[in-house]
Amino acid sequence: MKFEKIPNISVDCVVFGYDINTKSLNVLVMKRYLESKTGTDVLVDDYVLTGYHVYEHETLDGCATRVLKELTGLTNQYKKQFKAFGNPDRLTNEKDLIWIENEGFNLRTITIAYYFLLKTEDVDLKNNKHQEKWFPIKELPELGFDHRKIILEAYEDLKVKCLSEPVIFKLLPDKFTINEVQELYQSILGVDFDNRNFRRKLIKKKYIIPLDEKQVGVSKKPAQLYMFSKDVYEKMFQKNYLISI
Amino acid sequence: MKFEKIPNISVDCVVFGYDINTKSLNVLVMKRYLESKTGTDVLVDDYVLTGYHVYEHETLDGCATRVLKELTGLTNQYKKQFKAFGNPDRLTNEKDLIWIENEGFNLRTITIAYYFLLKTEDVDLKNNKHQEKWFPIKELPELGFDHRKIILEAYEDLKVKCLSEPVIFKLLPDKFTINEVQELYQSILGVDFDNRNFRRKLIKKKYIIPLDEKQVGVSKKPAQLYMFSKDVYEKMFQKNYLISI
Repeated sequence: MKFEKIPNISVDCVVFGYDINTKSLNVLVMKRYLESKTGTDVLVDDYVLTGYHVYEHETLDGCATRVLKELTGLTNQYKKQFKAFGNPDRLTNEKDLIWIENEGFNLRTITIAYYFLLKTEDVDLKNNKHQEKWFPIKELPELGFDHRKIILEAYEDLKVKCLSEPVIFKLLPDKFTINEVQELYQSILGVDFDNRNFRRKLIKKKYIIPLDEKQVGVSKKPAQLYMFSKDVYEKMFQKNYLISI
Repeated sequence: MKFEKIPNISVDCVVFGYDINTKSLNVLVMKRYLESKTGTDVLVDDYVLTGYHVYEHETLDGCATRVLKELTGLTNQYKKQFKAFGNPDRLTNEKDLIWIENEGFNLRTITIAYYFLLKTEDVDLKNNKHQEKWFPIKELPELGFDHRKIILEAYEDLKVKCLSEPVIFKLLPDKFTINEVQELYQSILGVDFDNRNFRRKLIKKKYIIPLDEKQVGVSKKPAQLYMFSKDVYEKMFQKNYLISI
């Protein structure tokens, strides 16, 4: 099979990782670095999303899966294709033009953007060949192309989605405390919830299953652990259309 | 300005129209018809979504707006880019291949799909040059390319979206009865709601504004008319993050 790239169509991946210790929603980006031919000047030194051209034989989903695996070694993570970006001027700032000339790709490239939801701790950044780095969503570095826009639109989509679908559990370990769910919601939405109200509402949900286990290795009183049951959730959702506009 | 088409990137539009009289959610599609060169055989006779190649100078949103205007004459309608479709085999059934050979476009075309929400009655189908026709979402005709898949995915997206965002009001006239909102939800979701419950919940919403008007020209007792206030909705939504998973 030939591995021919489609020169004007790419996939870009916004990898969201939640760090349960720092309570921070992070984005994984990689270094974009280029020196002049003489090696005396740094022409480009910033960060970009990880992405790649789509191969002729490949589906868009397949391309996104390949890109994530190349970056993190991970497969089978939650992914969502959320938007295509195709403005004619999306790759035309000065550094982008230098970069594109060096890499020889098409100025009018349309990118299909995906986001992934995973746990920061699942990604091993030792010896990473792309100089990847996590940045908190609130402290993004200088980004090339239209990648800041892509990240912020992915974040908006996630904010809306986490209110109506249980995607949030993809960012948590399998066993979690109610407090950890609340902290994650607060981190994503940038608001504070009343502890008692939040707990009361969440433990009422049939798909939040209390376990016969408590936290270990914590200095304070260990809290009850719970898990999310996708099975129960899906059965409930099929029966009830909850209109919550 | 040159109007050069990008040969492998298109936009396709799923135009949803609600017919308040028949209580049916419809999709606008156009005829795809091709005879053999001798005129003796009909080679292709089915329906497709309306779509077009993206121009070099054009944004994706701009292309979708242009396509809708060409089809319906309408501008300023609610539109959502919901997914890109790019499977390598999406245009490869027998009729598609005949059609593509005749039209001379790229076999590996990726399409960015949008859906529009409007009222069936706003589209004038007299003298339509593309032989456009409305079909109820439950009674789609034979469709070319992967357009059945695109329509059904747009419909799934709409079903989820109408539960958590007030998009449904784009499908209704400015002034509506509570019963009409219920019928529309029932038509989209394919379920029946309890009348009294539905009414009670809906009229409690601050953004559903009762008018000093009633229906006219109905044989039964005329019902109270309401309108949807986007202003009020947006102010409420900014303040409250309603988690309804």
